[in-house]
Amino acid sequence: MLDDLRKEVCWANRRLPELDLVAWTSGNVCGRDPREPSLVVVKPSGVLFGDLRPEDMLVVDLDGRIVEGTLKPSVDTATALYVLREMPEIRSVIHTHSRYATAFAALGQAIQVYLTEHGDAFGIPIPCGRYAKIGGIEVGQEVVRVLREIKLQCPAVLMQNHGVFAVGANVRGALKAAAVVEDIARTVHLAMTVGKPIPIPPEEAARLYTVYHTKYGQKPGGGFE
Amino acid sequence: MLDDLRKEVCWANRRLPELDLVAWTSGNVCGRDPREPSLVVVKPSGVLFGDLRPEDMLVVDLDGRIVEGTLKPSVDTATALYVLREMPEIRSVIHTHSRYATAFAALGQAIQVYLTEHGDAFGIPIPCGRYAKIGGIEVGQEVVRVLREIKLQCPAVLMQNHGVFAVGANVRGALKAAAVVEDIARTVHLAMTVGKPIPIPPEEAARLYTVYHTKYGQKPGGGFE
Amino acid sequence: MLDDLRKEVCWANRRLPELDLVAWTSGNVCGRDPREPSLVVVKPSGVLFGDLRPEDMLVVDLDGRIVEGTLKPSVDTATALYVLREMPEIRSVIHTHSRYATAFAALGQAIQVYLTEHGDAFGIPIPCGRYAKIGGIEVGQEVVRVLREIKLQCPAVLMQNHGVFAVGANVRGALKAAAVVEDIARTVHLAMTVGKPIPIPPEEAARLYTVYHTKYGQKPGGGFE
Amino acid sequence: MLDDLRKEVCWANRRLPELDLVAWTSGNVCGRDPREPSLVVVKPSGVLFGDLRPEDMLVVDLDGRIVEGTLKPSVDTATALYVLREMPEIRSVIHTHSRYATAFAALGQAIQVYLTEHGDAFGIPIPCGRYAKIGGIEVGQEVVRVLREIKLQCPAVLMQNHGVFAVGANVRGALKAAAVVEDIARTVHLAMTVGKPIPIPPEEAARLYTVYHTKYGQKPGGGFE
Repeated sequence: MLDDLRKEVCWANRRLPELDLVAWTSGNVCGRDPREPSLVVVKPSGVLFGDLRPEDMLVVDLDGRIVEGTLKPSVDTATALYVLREMPEIRSVIHTHSRYATAFAALGQAIQVYLTEHGDAFGIPIPCGRYAKIGGIEVGQEVVRVLREIKLQCPAVLMQNHGVFAVGANVRGALKAAAVVEDIARTVHLAMTVGKPIPIPPEEAARLYTVYHTKYGQKPGGGFE
Repeated sequence: MLDDLRKEVCWANRRLPELDLVAWTSGNVCGRDPREPSLVVVKPSGVLFGDLRPEDMLVVDLDGRIVEGTLKPSVDTATALYVLREMPEIRSVIHTHSRYATAFAALGQAIQVYLTEHGDAFGIPIPCGRYAKIGGIEVGQEVVRVLREIKLQCPAVLMQNHGVFAVGANVRGALKAAAVVEDIARTVHLAMTVGKPIPIPPEEAARLYTVYHTKYGQKPGGGFE
Repeated sequence: MLDDLRKEVCWANRRLPELDLVAWTSGNVCGRDPREPSLVVVKPSGVLFGDLRPEDMLVVDLDGRIVEGTLKPSVDTATALYVLREMPEIRSVIHTHSRYATAFAALGQAIQVYLTEHGDAFGIPIPCGRYAKIGGIEVGQEVVRVLREIKLQCPAVLMQNHGVFAVGANVRGALKAAAVVEDIARTVHLAMTVGKPIPIPPEEAARLYTVYHTKYGQKPGGGFE
Repeated sequence: MLDDLRKEVCWANRRLPELDLVAWTSGNVCGRDPREPSLVVVKPSGVLFGDLRPEDMLVVDLDGRIVEGTLKPSVDTATALYVLREMPEIRSVIHTHSRYATAFAALGQAIQVYLTEHGDAFGIPIPCGRYAKIGGIEVGQEVVRVLREIKLQCPAVLMQNHGVFAVGANVRGALKAAAVVEDIARTVHLAMTVGKPIPIPPEEAARLYTVYHTKYGQKPGGGFE
């Protein structure tokens, strides 16, 4: 069932440590079936990334009921499903504690636009959501509140004291968002430790975003991927 | 003799450089036989991790007498055995100089709870033991003193000017503790170099710990793994 | 068509992530045909480096018309072609957002000569060009202006808020420049975060450059490679 | 000729990038023949580490005359040979610009003993030599002056603005010194960027050194390896 999506979600989960976005078993990627949007492929809980195989992935419905699979789903599944229920245009949610981005989250700080790479990809600061209690729907609610506030232009939210939630119109798009957020966070962090980075004004950041999203890649248009 | 444990201990030792927790030949993992708790498999001294094979591991008793093996055991064996003698619930001890955690040890500082990852895993600060002379039983005594003081809730201790001692109910549990301590230390360090991270209050850290240890992974319950 | 150059450009693009100079799909290498200097091999836009094959490379002319290839060329092609049109001695242009160098770019700061490695390779500070709008010819103009100002002695320019443009008399020379700039930036950054590095006086930096470029490597003479 | 030593020197050179001690082609290892101490195996200049084969190594005499080999020897050969001529007990010299250690060199600072790892391995601060002009014998003279001053107890010297020179009684010993110096430099740097590391008093550092060098590894005694 959903064999292609299982493979894609498994591939993306295995990329997380290769992209240096996770440590040990923390972090996960899920993907929603484009044909049957109430079905979601999720990572099992507490399994080492290097051991993941497509057949270990679980299929769950939007309420978290297991449709296929024997392992226990990731503890972050409830948050991802909340986001997927509320925002149908999102088809993949990735959660990481990637270190540089999470350092900003520990400070409760959004990442301002200092880099053309940031302007190109997102056009606006990477927002930081308020502290939300893990265990219920609070994390999902805050992620959705922030994503709606910025009209989904930046497909990633830092959550205070917690980490990164990246989203996409597909698994690869969400993975790109997760990787680019960490790359931006790293470079901005490096700049801040030796001086005061020069901000890119909001109107120039917006212009970069428009140029990039009409010219970049092999397909036309579209910021949110 | 103890072939499975040899393989497991060898595997965990080889993971140390892959997880970027050690340099050159420093650092080591030992494991206690669950059936015969007076037997411990330890790493030989001064061998490069990439060259370690299961048959190079030594079997020693709790007093450090070599039961099987021809190489000299790791210089940290005496410390590990002291911990294993004093605390029967511990079945694996890992020692590293993993860099970010050891930086806090060089400052003589515990790592406060700034990250939900930290609250989830340990619920309390990662403690820092006092300076203890290497060569006798002083290091082991101080590790045990601190672990008892915190009732083994955080399965890792920083030792001032020295490094990390992580423990577990099995080899994989201790390896997870060693990896998670370094990951937390890295992110907290990054946050501290650009600002003042926001602490998670002790009662919320405790709540995170309880939620995580009842929901996470493929087996029910249990913080100390 | 241009099979050897395709292979060389593909190889150099694939080295970018291995040398930790890029994240995700950002960054690219192009190379000009030594026999037919109006032909340039460029990377396709938005393709993951690990997926690049020599046959995916495009051949374009100096005005950006596609001579061979079906994919869309890198968005940085216009900048590279501007540089190649204006400076015939350049046969390769590499663009990266390598993190340490880009951190200095975010500060709008040149990198002064604090290291003999820097004196050896370039003999002068690594310059930082002014902010230039992406999307037109402004980036190319500023890169050329700076490279002419320093008479091409340092084959790399930081561009404010943006990243690195490295050039070479061939693909390998440009790749070396891109790698060495990042290595210098890393070490200087590390020194600046704990103290005040001691500058190497300009005349000694110039002497180092002369000694190195008459003695180093397997071929005689020549700084710009 | 000297086939075993060629293999060993080639292996150690190839380890340099794997241990993250070098970038591009900078850095090199040489080794002196234990039977014929006037013969030294050196790395060719400007060859990428991944391309090095044992047969590419050169054999030179102590005055730098090529005894076997067709490539040009490393530019650092003169410095290494000066050290080998002056100090017969040294049989391997390694030069790197490893980043954390070189950051201290850029500050002209010795690395004080803050870590038991440092006390164990060296027992005294890692010294920093004065700026010496590259190209003649000045670098070799300063390295020898410092190594004699500390009676070779710490088998590595930082050279101001330049990098690390590590030495050993054999190739593996020098490689260990180069790796351990960088590891210590990294951890100390990390500690210094968030606070003030607690020094280990000289007498305790000396005690650690004595304990370690009588107990560690598979062979008895001996600090300088």
